[in-house]
Amino acid sequence: MAQGGREVALEVFCWEKDHLLLLDQSKLPLEVDYIACCSHHDVAEAIREMRVRGAPAIGVAAAFGIALAAFKYSPESKDSLEDFLFEAAKVLKETRPTAVNLVWALERMLEVYQKRLKEKPLDEVRTGLLEAARQILADQKARDDKIASFGATLIPEKANILTYCNTGALATGGLGTALGVIVRAHEEGKRVHVYVPETRPVLQGARLTVWELREKGIPFTLITDNMAGYLFSRGEIDLVIVGADRIAANGDFANKIGTYSLAVLAFHHQRPFYVAAPVSTFDLGIASGEDIPIEMRNPDEVRMIQGTPITDSQCPVLNPAFDVTPHELVSGFITEKGVIKPPFESLASFLENPF
Amino acid sequence: MAQGGREVALEVFCWEKDHLLLLDQSKLPLEVDYIACCSHHDVAEAIREMRVRGAPAIGVAAAFGIALAAFKYSPESKDSLEDFLFEAAKVLKETRPTAVNLVWALERMLEVYQKRLKEKPLDEVRTGLLEAARQILADQKARDDKIASFGATLIPEKANILTYCNTGALATGGLGTALGVIVRAHEEGKRVHVYVPETRPVLQGARLTVWELREKGIPFTLITDNMAGYLFSRGEIDLVIVGADRIAANGDFANKIGTYSLAVLAFHHQRPFYVAAPVSTFDLGIASGEDIPIEMRNPDEVRMIQGTPITDSQCPVLNPAFDVTPHELVSGFITEKGVIKPPFESLASFLENPF
Repeated sequence: MAQGGREVALEVFCWEKDHLLLLDQSKLPLEVDYIACCSHHDVAEAIREMRVRGAPAIGVAAAFGIALAAFKYSPESKDSLEDFLFEAAKVLKETRPTAVNLVWALERMLEVYQKRLKEKPLDEVRTGLLEAARQILADQKARDDKIASFGATLIPEKANILTYCNTGALATGGLGTALGVIVRAHEEGKRVHVYVPETRPVLQGARLTVWELREKGIPFTLITDNMAGYLFSRGEIDLVIVGADRIAANGDFANKIGTYSLAVLAFHHQRPFYVAAPVSTFDLGIASGEDIPIEMRNPDEVRMIQGTPITDSQCPVLNPAFDVTPHELVSGFITEKGVIKPPFESLASFLENPF
Repeated sequence: MAQGGREVALEVFCWEKDHLLLLDQSKLPLEVDYIACCSHHDVAEAIREMRVRGAPAIGVAAAFGIALAAFKYSPESKDSLEDFLFEAAKVLKETRPTAVNLVWALERMLEVYQKRLKEKPLDEVRTGLLEAARQILADQKARDDKIASFGATLIPEKANILTYCNTGALATGGLGTALGVIVRAHEEGKRVHVYVPETRPVLQGARLTVWELREKGIPFTLITDNMAGYLFSRGEIDLVIVGADRIAANGDFANKIGTYSLAVLAFHHQRPFYVAAPVSTFDLGIASGEDIPIEMRNPDEVRMIQGTPITDSQCPVLNPAFDVTPHELVSGFITEKGVIKPPFESLASFLENPF
């Protein structure tokens, strides 16, 4: 599978009999490799180490993690299957605190178990949970497709687009969110060009987005994160489109560290700033961005780049994985239910009753 | 010398008999090494490859380059000494187009030659030019000292300061410009803390500024360049202070790529944004930032980090070494003649007649 052509290589999740093959994104683009996950612990580790990343993809991975737990469960265990599944969900939930799709996917899996599978024999629970995980992935692909079509209407001909991090096939298992919109605009013949910030510390832009854009034949230019201002000041950016890891009820949203700086630059230069994300990214239980927990990651991600030290090993470091952009800087949310433009007072009612 | 203690290690320029030992900043902080420059060509190469960098230090290096040319000149040459020196100045001037201190230092060296040494024997020209280069370095140290004292008056107690790139001893051969101000505030007991962006692509922040701050015992935190917005949004930055490579007559200025984004963030969050630079950085012959030439550097600086590839070797890349920040975003210029606050209409008259 790892030796396969481009279509196969871009498949993030492959189920084989009783285990999950997961594309190891930490090695891309220099190496295309899959890791075998035989338990929910393997999936949890892959999420923590960012071998799978991107808010929707983390949700899908976690869903497969619950299915794996059922396959792993032994009828001789002293724990009940239900306890075992809930414990697995807890382990998976604690891997990364910011993205809300993870919680959403786990809740959906447990709901499927409790409502439809609880009284069934183990074999049926296993296939039922596997089917539910596959459905979450299929739904994500369908959502990506709708996000792409709604979003592409916002992209002008020959637009120079600034995106950020990786929000493509690798981030969702489908077409992608923000990058999916760009791909659709390209497919529609809009002759877009994409500026790709490398996205330190983990370099998802330089490693993953560059790879996906080249596979799709979309023209792009890689920059370091600090070059975005230079491009804005020269009128080289027509619009910005990014993904999101969690969106609060007022429209404030968390996304990869560095997103906020791009939003301020877009605002300062009066350029549109769009956020593309499935409805599962909205957390209406959270009033504003202040309440979104921000994950702090290992300082070595900053001290080293792909394993090469760039400073001394004891250097004091800050390494927040995300920042929060206030809704005032957002020109619109692109969801599978349509585009939501400001003001965002009625986000909740839109999500329930889109036009 | 390379084995010496901290004081010696921080000496950027060491003259030995007939050649210059130059601290190789491209290897810091993992290795402290000096390279021997035996001709102006060696100095030009060191400047091009950023083994010596920082606008004032480039000026000093170029001045020593002219002295080296005189030492290298053979009386049997078919070229006159004057032609040889002017040719050397041309070679040195073409190394990097943005910093104006380079041009200023070369013009000063040629003026010394023409006004005071032209008719003298070769030996006296050599010692005269060496003396002039040493004087430029000594003057820079004196200027740094004054910049530091003027600038420190602007730093509040317990300030959290965001700086950028490296503007310390390594960038000038003296105390530094922006970093010199921070060092002076620290010496005055102001208990400052410094946020240091790594400064991609060449990582002067992570490699050089971190090293200097640790040597001086000043508390700091290393961040990636895209984390500055996060800090501003949380009220963690009290002020920004950066250096400059060229300042136009209206106050627009060029500095390391990424400076402009920090200026926009400071403006958006209503935080002071200061520029510390010697008067030799002002280019009053240039009306505005639009006329400052921006050096485009090797794309491999972006594609690789310290020699490690982060993306594929053919990836399309933009790599401007500098950006231009408009004067509207500047709270003040800290020079050896005092602090210039807005409006900057009378920059020229201030530089000639400071208070």
